Amino acid sequence: MSLTIGVDVGGTKVAAAVVEEDGSVLAQTRRHTPADDVSQTLQMIMDAVEELVTAHDVEAIGIGAAGWIDAARSTVLFAPNIAWRNEPLQAELADKFGLPVVVENDANVAAWAEYRFGAGRDVESMLMYTVGTGIGGAVIMDGRLIRGAHGIAAELGHLIAVPDGQICGCGRRGCLEQYASGQALVRLGQAAVAHDPDSAPILGELAGGVPSAVTGPMITDAARRGDTASVGALADIGKWLGIACVDLVQALDPQVIVIGGGVVDAGDLLLDPTRASYAAGMAQRGRLPVAELRPAEMGNTAGVVGAADLARSR
Amino acid sequence: MSLTIGVDVGGTKVAAAVVEEDGSVLAQTRRHTPADDVSQTLQMIMDAVEELVTAHDVEAIGIGAAGWIDAARSTVLFAPNIAWRNEPLQAELADKFGLPVVVENDANVAAWAEYRFGAGRDVESMLMYTVGTGIGGAVIMDGRLIRGAHGIAAELGHLIAVPDGQICGCGRRGCLEQYASGQALVRLGQAAVAHDPDSAPILGELAGGVPSAVTGPMITDAARRGDTASVGALADIGKWLGIACVDLVQALDPQVIVIGGGVVDAGDLLLDPTRASYAAGMAQRGRLPVAELRPAEMGNTAGVVGAADLARSR
Amino acid sequence: MSLTIGVDVGGTKVAAAVVEEDGSVLAQTRRHTPADDVSQTLQMIMDAVEELVTAHDVEAIGIGAAGWIDAARSTVLFAPNIAWRNEPLQAELADKFGLPVVVENDANVAAWAEYRFGAGRDVESMLMYTVGTGIGGAVIMDGRLIRGAHGIAAELGHLIAVPDGQICGCGRRGCLEQYASGQALVRLGQAAVAHDPDSAPILGELAGGVPSAVTGPMITDAARRGDTASVGALADIGKWLGIACVDLVQALDPQVIVIGGGVVDAGDLLLDPTRASYAAGMAQRGRLPVAELRPAEMGNTAGVVGAADLARSR
Amino acid sequence: MSLTIGVDVGGTKVAAAVVEEDGSVLAQTRRHTPADDVSQTLQMIMDAVEELVTAHDVEAIGIGAAGWIDAARSTVLFAPNIAWRNEPLQAELADKFGLPVVVENDANVAAWAEYRFGAGRDVESMLMYTVGTGIGGAVIMDGRLIRGAHGIAAELGHLIAVPDGQICGCGRRGCLEQYASGQALVRLGQAAVAHDPDSAPILGELAGGVPSAVTGPMITDAARRGDTASVGALADIGKWLGIACVDLVQALDPQVIVIGGGVVDAGDLLLDPTRASYAAGMAQRGRLPVAELRPAEMGNTAGVVGAADLARSR
Repeated sequence: MSLTIGVDVGGTKVAAAVVEEDGSVLAQTRRHTPADDVSQTLQMIMDAVEELVTAHDVEAIGIGAAGWIDAARSTVLFAPNIAWRNEPLQAELADKFGLPVVVENDANVAAWAEYRFGAGRDVESMLMYTVGTGIGGAVIMDGRLIRGAHGIAAELGHLIAVPDGQICGCGRRGCLEQYASGQALVRLGQAAVAHDPDSAPILGELAGGVPSAVTGPMITDAARRGDTASVGALADIGKWLGIACVDLVQALDPQVIVIGGGVVDAGDLLLDPTRASYAAGMAQRGRLPVAELRPAEMGNTAGVVGAADLARSR
Repeated sequence: MSLTIGVDVGGTKVAAAVVEEDGSVLAQTRRHTPADDVSQTLQMIMDAVEELVTAHDVEAIGIGAAGWIDAARSTVLFAPNIAWRNEPLQAELADKFGLPVVVENDANVAAWAEYRFGAGRDVESMLMYTVGTGIGGAVIMDGRLIRGAHGIAAELGHLIAVPDGQICGCGRRGCLEQYASGQALVRLGQAAVAHDPDSAPILGELAGGVPSAVTGPMITDAARRGDTASVGALADIGKWLGIACVDLVQALDPQVIVIGGGVVDAGDLLLDPTRASYAAGMAQRGRLPVAELRPAEMGNTAGVVGAADLARSR
Repeated sequence: MSLTIGVDVGGTKVAAAVVEEDGSVLAQTRRHTPADDVSQTLQMIMDAVEELVTAHDVEAIGIGAAGWIDAARSTVLFAPNIAWRNEPLQAELADKFGLPVVVENDANVAAWAEYRFGAGRDVESMLMYTVGTGIGGAVIMDGRLIRGAHGIAAELGHLIAVPDGQICGCGRRGCLEQYASGQALVRLGQAAVAHDPDSAPILGELAGGVPSAVTGPMITDAARRGDTASVGALADIGKWLGIACVDLVQALDPQVIVIGGGVVDAGDLLLDPTRASYAAGMAQRGRLPVAELRPAEMGNTAGVVGAADLARSR
Repeated sequence: MSLTIGVDVGGTKVAAAVVEEDGSVLAQTRRHTPADDVSQTLQMIMDAVEELVTAHDVEAIGIGAAGWIDAARSTVLFAPNIAWRNEPLQAELADKFGLPVVVENDANVAAWAEYRFGAGRDVESMLMYTVGTGIGGAVIMDGRLIRGAHGIAAELGHLIAVPDGQICGCGRRGCLEQYASGQALVRLGQAAVAHDPDSAPILGELAGGVPSAVTGPMITDAARRGDTASVGALADIGKWLGIACVDLVQALDPQVIVIGGGVVDAGDLLLDPTRASYAAGMAQRGRLPVAELRPAEMGNTAGVVGAADLARSR
């Protein structure tokens, strides 16, 4: 039975697991990472892998990390939350452990896990939005991850939702991330507490009346309890996600679109508005089959399972 | 040496050719088609193929036609310019000639020709816009044509350029086709002749002063001779093409984007504004490599050569 | 008691009335007009006024007509539905009847009637949208009709609703008239019958299944009987009207905004969505008082009553 | 000869002047204000007026201040830069000096000065944009300042430039102020220095290479010396101003539109792009006369002169 290791490198922690061919996790371990120290982040990864390699006979290592990964899947060109610039992660791990190593963008890793074992396991073509603080994207067509000529495809959070719209951290105006991310959600919740508190009684209470104290989970919690502004904030970002899906379906005709990331905890409070605006946008396409929207299923294990499986299918 | 036949089915003519492995045309023939009679269009195709099959030892047949083709590449579901609905073209030709047959959308066929032998012959990933009366699109990633789950991917002319914008024949509002196609170009030229004739002295003369007489080639001709409104009209559609490219590059990270179709005859009068708005949109992405914009190279032979090569690589 | 005559010149009929100071109609008459014959339209007006002047002792004549009226309120510069170009209407009637004559744009006339005797009779500042086939507008501030430096102010139907949007007959892109007029309503109804007939069962029946047979009144009728697409079409144009109101309130801070014209027959099916999008747009303005939206009250008599009263208050 | 006093209350200073009927300044004085202490700001005003009243025989006092002034022109409801909330300024000054007092919004005051003695002295209807850090607006129609039903008309900086665009401090999305103000200009300059320093060599030098050190005057200075990004930044905000003018001209048909405020120091570097986008937007209106764009002429004296004249014509 073939085993591989998957490593999920986040801004503040490293998770690693030994994963079987069917996606089940045989063993796992976890370390906390100091985001500002390259050598320590790398050391945490080394330690976690070392622990698992010692106990299990694995044949390859896959690593998922937020950031731009080069086309050869070996170097982290830039990581927004970790102090890595042109970090030759593949070489460092291969040298140390004498095993094949694949490095991949975290949104691609999560999508691969869904494609193989989760919400997309019955299809060949899928798109995925990972909606956390920002928005990550992934494109899988005919069973292959579309990585692009330079390894930086599927920046689905940085397609334009509103021409000349809200300025984005990427320097452009109107990116989807400014309208449909957790960050956008929090901004809406904060505005409600600040400017229209009557519409946000539960959220206001959860935040102690302090707009800047509002968090995404508070909004989801308040929305579940019927807080008008919170329901509206989730509906607003859902609407923008649905609009974004329409264009991608015209471009890529996938079987399913998977929505994952922390925001999807809100369930149908997010996804019903997403489906509604998606359906409204697709309606006129008439009777052609269109992609189904599905929530992600893999939860927190998507990172390690996807990375491990990518290492196997490298 | 392996030979295949490529057939290019247009609204008013059928072109067919025997094509070698290197894309060169060994023999060709042509028929005029009556658009409103299914049986006659089919008969023209049969006649043209018959003529070539008799004289050459071919191993497969590829057919390109405007319209939606099913995922099995066998049936024309709908053809806008021909009276075909669910036409089982593959079966009809295979039965008649006893050869493997592949049916493909014309924009995909043209892109495949460019990918194999034209503007994209040195790359693995490319997008193509075919800008004629409408706008066709194609996506080739890692050497594979992305056809989508239902065979209808790459409707790049029907991505939204302007939210809530100009109503499109497809039923949606604001499709790129309404802003960047030959049809949009003609509308701009007609408006200039009608409302601001001083800006369009040469175009006005070519059209005999009659707005409805304006055609795309007239605009290109007038623009080459310095007609202000015509230069402006080409720049306007070029601008919208460039804006559209930006989002696709974020989504798919291709090596090149090829612009083809009749409008590209205008050369840099179209492509310089396209490059300018594309560059403006990509500028802030910093120093990452981005896809190059190139004009198509295959001209009128793209249809038969692409179809023939798809038949070979089926 | 002072009496004046008001004349309402439409595309196909002339209505004239003798009106008292309190806005009540003492006598009226009507003629049908041939739109393409200037002399006949003028003759119809002359005949109608003649009839009333003979029977009543009036002190002035007011005329309302669709079109651009010069700043001196004397000449019809251009009338879209009548064959008038620079027609010196004031001089022609003054010469004939020896009475003071005022010529005014029909949307201004209707607004003046509402301001004096209808939905705006209790306020000093109001805006009005007259939503018929097109959209007319009027601005009354501090009890004075704002006519502009050239007599052509208040073209509220040609403010931009959607940048780069739907091409308008006026030559610009994205005018409100393309999104919120009776013409826009009909387009939505026709699209529903054509592309999504299941959503428009009642409208489809009223139109005999023929998209091009759909009319505005059919949509209102079907909407009242619960036809989904018809309700949606009215809501859509209502939404755009509400959005438009927000900007005008920021610019002019009126006490009320009156919505009139044939489309307002739909009542709250139109106005509730208008109020909703207006409220959504104004919400963040906080606790400042904002203008109230009201339906017009004067109905078909607005034209003659408003014209007569403008003649009195000239 | 009738004299009045005009007071211009800014965030950090109070200027007061005795003004003659022809707008000339007979005497003036100035105080620095502490923005966070209501009583001190008021005391500075009192002191300044006291000084002038003692030496001159004046008949009324006009005060201009940034903020919302009530419809009775007596109370400052809210002032963004001063700690005033519902400050009964009229009563306080009238009690003290026994003279008639008028309180007015600063943008209205500046526009009134231009209308009476500056760029609009030859017309009856004008609009004005005062483009400083934010954007103030004023509407004068038929010689009357349009103040609105609640005294808060002419918020021209908060009309929507981009639907769903950049979030504004007022709580709405896409206000003109986010695209065409000094604040927007600085944001563009900062982005150039940060992300594309090659395009901003002179501006970069002026700012010592520090994006956050960029100021509006630096951009104007650099633009005059040919700095590409600075010229582009002024052109960008000019473009948005021109687009905004088009809609207002359709609504209000003024004779002139005056552009004032600190940004207008850039002269034609700002106004040429404004005129170009305004002309492009109006072009299709054909041969109707349209409002002329003019720079403000009154400079720093607009505040005191306009306030004094409003007091006279109260």
